[in-house]
Amino acid sequence: MSEFEFITRITGRLSRTINHDGGPIVEGLVEIGPGDDAAVLRTPDGRVVASSDLLIEGRHFRRDWSGPYDIGRKAAAQNLADVVAMGGRPTALLVGFGVPADIDVAWAERLYDGLRDECAVVGAVVAGGDVVRAPVVTLGVTALGDLAGRAPLRRSGARPGDVVAVRGRLGYAAAGLDLLTRGVDGPAELIAAHRRPRPPYEAGEEAVRLGATALIDVSDGLIQDLGHIAAAGGVRIDVDSAALPVPAELGPDGLRFVLTGGEDHGFAGTFPSGTTLPPEWRAIGRVTAGAGVTLDGRPHELTAWDHFLD
Amino acid sequence: MSEFEFITRITGRLSRTINHDGGPIVEGLVEIGPGDDAAVLRTPDGRVVASSDLLIEGRHFRRDWSGPYDIGRKAAAQNLADVVAMGGRPTALLVGFGVPADIDVAWAERLYDGLRDECAVVGAVVAGGDVVRAPVVTLGVTALGDLAGRAPLRRSGARPGDVVAVRGRLGYAAAGLDLLTRGVDGPAELIAAHRRPRPPYEAGEEAVRLGATALIDVSDGLIQDLGHIAAAGGVRIDVDSAALPVPAELGPDGLRFVLTGGEDHGFAGTFPSGTTLPPEWRAIGRVTAGAGVTLDGRPHELTAWDHFLD
Repeated sequence: MSEFEFITRITGRLSRTINHDGGPIVEGLVEIGPGDDAAVLRTPDGRVVASSDLLIEGRHFRRDWSGPYDIGRKAAAQNLADVVAMGGRPTALLVGFGVPADIDVAWAERLYDGLRDECAVVGAVVAGGDVVRAPVVTLGVTALGDLAGRAPLRRSGARPGDVVAVRGRLGYAAAGLDLLTRGVDGPAELIAAHRRPRPPYEAGEEAVRLGATALIDVSDGLIQDLGHIAAAGGVRIDVDSAALPVPAELGPDGLRFVLTGGEDHGFAGTFPSGTTLPPEWRAIGRVTAGAGVTLDGRPHELTAWDHFLD
Repeated sequence: MSEFEFITRITGRLSRTINHDGGPIVEGLVEIGPGDDAAVLRTPDGRVVASSDLLIEGRHFRRDWSGPYDIGRKAAAQNLADVVAMGGRPTALLVGFGVPADIDVAWAERLYDGLRDECAVVGAVVAGGDVVRAPVVTLGVTALGDLAGRAPLRRSGARPGDVVAVRGRLGYAAAGLDLLTRGVDGPAELIAAHRRPRPPYEAGEEAVRLGATALIDVSDGLIQDLGHIAAAGGVRIDVDSAALPVPAELGPDGLRFVLTGGEDHGFAGTFPSGTTLPPEWRAIGRVTAGAGVTLDGRPHELTAWDHFLD
């Protein structure tokens, strides 16, 4: 199969999304989709939100632990969540796909089905990309989004007195990965959480409406990601361990997974004192003067989840 | 060195570009640069041009044949050229960087110097990205650009009777790669062309002004890329071999390199009959009714440069 046949097959999984009746509402934003030198997207806000991640087989996923459809959904989800964490609405993905020689076109088609379907959850589409040979499955994913006239929600706005709150699951994906790594049985929900995160995408616009001062998606682990908010804002964040949700199904290491596990792509934000939070948001701590992240007032020592050094 | 120290070091090479006095004119377009969940760029045209490529060590470059600075310039150039080929002005890059364990921070800094400096040629900046571990050096590069109110210049607009013309070098990068592959001496200019392409970025806006009906950057090889224009427009393109520039320094295989060599990132376009082309553009053929690409009226049989299957 030639490069062009292969590309035609996999982009064929996408074109129905772009051209289909009654499809995602942002389809009208794609002026030029896959097949030219570049995509052209309308940006009604006069700005574009843009975020890129690389996903490398053996580090971010394993083909024996996840199928192509879930890998596609996860690759899309983590990038869409970055746009949401800025308060943006995702509109499009560009996907660079590095293909080892042992990948067949059916596997690749399922990957693109997953990319397409995760985009559809938020009304976005895959608008372009690139296919090359690579030694391991490699995905270079860029998500674009629109702010709809809103100010971007940065990491840097937390102020002493703010409430720290989270929305979405914490620790599930890490607990699932731990089961797979140790090769032991456990709740299917945990394995599923590792394979396919379900970010609560509505959290971004909701945080904007609630007057959030900072927002981040929890991709490196709660403590580490709150550390980014603390550093960017020049503040300290104190987490109250009693307020953290540590469900029994996470097992005996549940608190560690909640504090240091990434990849569930929930959201952590800071809100002015006195904000009435809807029930989906759980208050877990407080912003104070100082630096760093503390747990019950003590500096936190657990090793953070670190994609880079692992 | 931790992930965050490493990232701080390499993004430190970029911040001077974004914040520097008298710097590139598009700096004002970057509302939020590296360091948050996503970048935010202003899009005064109300649209954004977006293109992604993956570059994989061993396939698109070799560390023993190219230094990090040249690899950075080349990775930026090939993506910036895609935006130019749509008639756009590049504004920003996002760079996902996959780092093997044997890469030191000084090597990575030089790579980012190269990305920064190639962007500066067109007044663009590196606005964001990602750093992860990878088995080989991996670059996932996304270029964004602005159309400044112009219609995008597609591959599909060629019409019978149009003149086919090229701007920029053809075959130099392929001839240089051939020297490196065979391990023989040859003109330094050819090796340099492989290591660091010099796309004539002004070709995009110039083609728009000249009324071009289609434009592409020559990345896969002249015949193959003209084939994309022919297929997208439902036309045939006939190339006149006597009109092709085949400089003596390309060696005895010069014509083959000119016809099938990619990676110089010159531009090929089609223009209405009677267009007065400036001297930088060389007319090399004609659009006719039919399909495919012919050389002097005969179907072209040379194997095209194919990144995917090689």
